[in-house]
Amino acid sequence: MCEGHDHKEQKRVNLATSVLAANDSLAQENRDIFKDMLVVNLVSSPGSGKTSILERSLLELRDEFSLAVIEGDVFTDRDAQRIKKTGVSVIQINTGGACHLDAKMIRKGVDQLDLDGVDLLFIENVGNLVCPAGFDLGEDFKVTVLSTTEGDDKPAKYPAMFKKSAAVLVNKVDLKEALEIDLKALDAELFEVSPQATVFHVSAKTGEGFAGWLDWLKAEIKKKQAIKLG
Amino acid sequence: MCEGHDHKEQKRVNLATSVLAANDSLAQENRDIFKDMLVVNLVSSPGSGKTSILERSLLELRDEFSLAVIEGDVFTDRDAQRIKKTGVSVIQINTGGACHLDAKMIRKGVDQLDLDGVDLLFIENVGNLVCPAGFDLGEDFKVTVLSTTEGDDKPAKYPAMFKKSAAVLVNKVDLKEALEIDLKALDAELFEVSPQATVFHVSAKTGEGFAGWLDWLKAEIKKKQAIKLG
Repeated sequence: MCEGHDHKEQKRVNLATSVLAANDSLAQENRDIFKDMLVVNLVSSPGSGKTSILERSLLELRDEFSLAVIEGDVFTDRDAQRIKKTGVSVIQINTGGACHLDAKMIRKGVDQLDLDGVDLLFIENVGNLVCPAGFDLGEDFKVTVLSTTEGDDKPAKYPAMFKKSAAVLVNKVDLKEALEIDLKALDAELFEVSPQATVFHVSAKTGEGFAGWLDWLKAEIKKKQAIKLG
Repeated sequence: MCEGHDHKEQKRVNLATSVLAANDSLAQENRDIFKDMLVVNLVSSPGSGKTSILERSLLELRDEFSLAVIEGDVFTDRDAQRIKKTGVSVIQINTGGACHLDAKMIRKGVDQLDLDGVDLLFIENVGNLVCPAGFDLGEDFKVTVLSTTEGDDKPAKYPAMFKKSAAVLVNKVDLKEALEIDLKALDAELFEVSPQATVFHVSAKTGEGFAGWLDWLKAEIKKKQAIKLG
């Protein structure tokens, strides 16, 4: 009798709260592990180009900085295989059905990577605009990738992710003529939902706009290192 | 003491199982309500073009059939506003953060729609390639939309959704030259993961490929009506 509907619903809410609290506590432990490096949690819809952006960014940064990558996916190690070709250390985490990475998975990944001397660790999350927003991994910040092919209404429809992003990469701008998309309207939508985010228009295919994104990343790496040096 | 880690984990698994069992039971009730109409649950990543496909399909079918739409989104009623312009009855459900519709939300939506005499009810799910796969809404079948812009690796990376789809609409084929995508490779990936699915190459923008998709839908409506007439 005590398992009535309201009671069950309350138990579900309590458990969801305890799952998030446990995750936040582990994320804080990860943050201590990450104190000497910049950690970027890359999020987006499936197919918006996170892995392609990573590939190009790694190739541009690898001579100047020590880099590592944690790849998250529901299934397959295809993305890790692509990243390996850049010569950067990478490990793959499969969530086995879960729609996001969590702090515990990241901790397991970290145990398999040599992070000594690493300046920048990228975490590529599962392709999903909803679930990863709620889970802190211990990163310095989230960066959301939004493809021009997804239309200009996504910030308003998936606000949680955009509100939590330090930067937004509007990718595939090489397709803007074919798509007849109004990038100014998209920027206005982004500013409305996430005024805190720095927005870069990029193409992982052509390299357009990468200079600004990479300069911003380099400045963030240096800020983190300045904190470390006190 | 009894709230140890394993115990908590087991409680979580039990609750997840009971959530799905409760959903399946409600889905079966919805299926009884839907016995006189075809119900299609449209799923995809954000921005793959579900709403655009719906708009064109409704305009093509509205003179021949009685239609209705349930729109699902995390936030906003933008999609319902778009559908209203076709003259078809539509209601919007906001999940308020949840990454998928469930059978209970659909039941609430059904209570607000006049479904008397309706031949075809479309349900547009939240843009998400992971979560909606686990939740039966009482539909006849799921149809997944996959945009050519998302690349050819999505069926392998998000297999649950593709394995459960009766049909896959490969949308935005008008961009195939700009994207330099190999549609044969994509079809091979789709066949590997979801051999049961009928695949249509379409463009909601130009109408390319819609004749086949609409013929297939019409045949399914007639099959359902034949069952109803016994």
